[in-house]
Amino acid sequence: MNIILLDKEDFISRTRVCLKDRRLRHVLDVHRASPGDALTVGLLNGPVGTARITSLSLEALEMEVELDRQPPAPLPVTLILSLPRPKMLKRVLFAAASMGVKKIFLINSFRVEKSYWNSPLLQEERMRDHLLSGLEQALDTFMPQVLLKPLFKPFVEDELPEMVHGSCALVAHPEAAKPCPRDTNRDVLLAVGPEGGFIAYEIEKLTSIGFLPVSLGKRPLRVEIALPALLARIF
Amino acid sequence: MNIILLDKEDFISRTRVCLKDRRLRHVLDVHRASPGDALTVGLLNGPVGTARITSLSLEALEMEVELDRQPPAPLPVTLILSLPRPKMLKRVLFAAASMGVKKIFLINSFRVEKSYWNSPLLQEERMRDHLLSGLEQALDTFMPQVLLKPLFKPFVEDELPEMVHGSCALVAHPEAAKPCPRDTNRDVLLAVGPEGGFIAYEIEKLTSIGFLPVSLGKRPLRVEIALPALLARIF
Repeated sequence: MNIILLDKEDFISRTRVCLKDRRLRHVLDVHRASPGDALTVGLLNGPVGTARITSLSLEALEMEVELDRQPPAPLPVTLILSLPRPKMLKRVLFAAASMGVKKIFLINSFRVEKSYWNSPLLQEERMRDHLLSGLEQALDTFMPQVLLKPLFKPFVEDELPEMVHGSCALVAHPEAAKPCPRDTNRDVLLAVGPEGGFIAYEIEKLTSIGFLPVSLGKRPLRVEIALPALLARIF
Repeated sequence: MNIILLDKEDFISRTRVCLKDRRLRHVLDVHRASPGDALTVGLLNGPVGTARITSLSLEALEMEVELDRQPPAPLPVTLILSLPRPKMLKRVLFAAASMGVKKIFLINSFRVEKSYWNSPLLQEERMRDHLLSGLEQALDTFMPQVLLKPLFKPFVEDELPEMVHGSCALVAHPEAAKPCPRDTNRDVLLAVGPEGGFIAYEIEKLTSIGFLPVSLGKRPLRVEIALPALLARIF
């Protein structure tokens, strides 16, 4: 937690907050802070700044807050991700949020196990926890949006073509002949397959609407590793 | 496990192997393979190829092996990594091995908790398991070398200068003014700090022997995310 994210409900006056939850515990246990200390804070979906501790006990933390800066810029990317297995989904949401991704479609594909769609991790509140941790890691405040698309074909045929328009649309595919582009100065739509990759039919569907298959090399990588690698290469 | 890695001891004749351990279970449970099926195999620290199953039971897997290709090229990088906390170390070793890193120094630095050096994970056999999983993910066979350097100053003063010579030496530092270089066509020494980063004294020591502080942007990233991002950017 490199930044303490504040909700509007935390404010007890225009510039004063009172925290009693896991953020209080974090300040006590990890920061080991004292009254007078300054902490980095941000308003969820708003600016960032500094808070000075005015009182701190085991029950409550009060701070005087000044929000005077913008969080780091988001990445101009929309992520289209084959639903990973639940354990990996946590890490992928964290990684995406910490790297500045603001829109994620979780889609079905042939190699996604059906049971993954029943995971309690897909509950909005559960995903939000992992996204929030990613923001807290990266000094960011803007919550990414996650949309579930459990049907591949209607999503690719009816919704994706409009998004492709005007974007650089890439699908990560270990067997692709083209290397992943570097330092792209454009809006990017990035599709990433499941373990084992998209099947040929899925790659064909995506290329038919304008996606370019690109590769990071001959090594198949786990999604949680491929994602930071792709984003760092592309932007 | 995208490749089954074989030891010399697995060979019962020049071209035939017999497996009875976790690799047998993987072939039964995950591949759900049958006699006649072909699997991708590799000789540890050697070539890769194809094996055809000649017999398969709950007790043993026998295969006829042909090793006729080289594994993917290693990355020309030496990694100098502040010892991460044990849970993260597992993932970082896996990530490094799967991306093709072949030499890793785990070093001490001010923000490394002393207890990390007592973790049972630092036993050679335990680290080897995570490195092996990384190789199995990435179709690679060459086992990375991990060296422990629990004293920062002697390592940086007495051992590192010689390694810097002739290399591009980079230290990842979120506060650095220079962006991390892209597509470097050189041997790279890459130093990555702990959570919270190297302290000013450590950055000074590293720059005094030729390291260039570089940044991936304003977002502090977890080591397990920063590492794939750095490697994908640099190579």
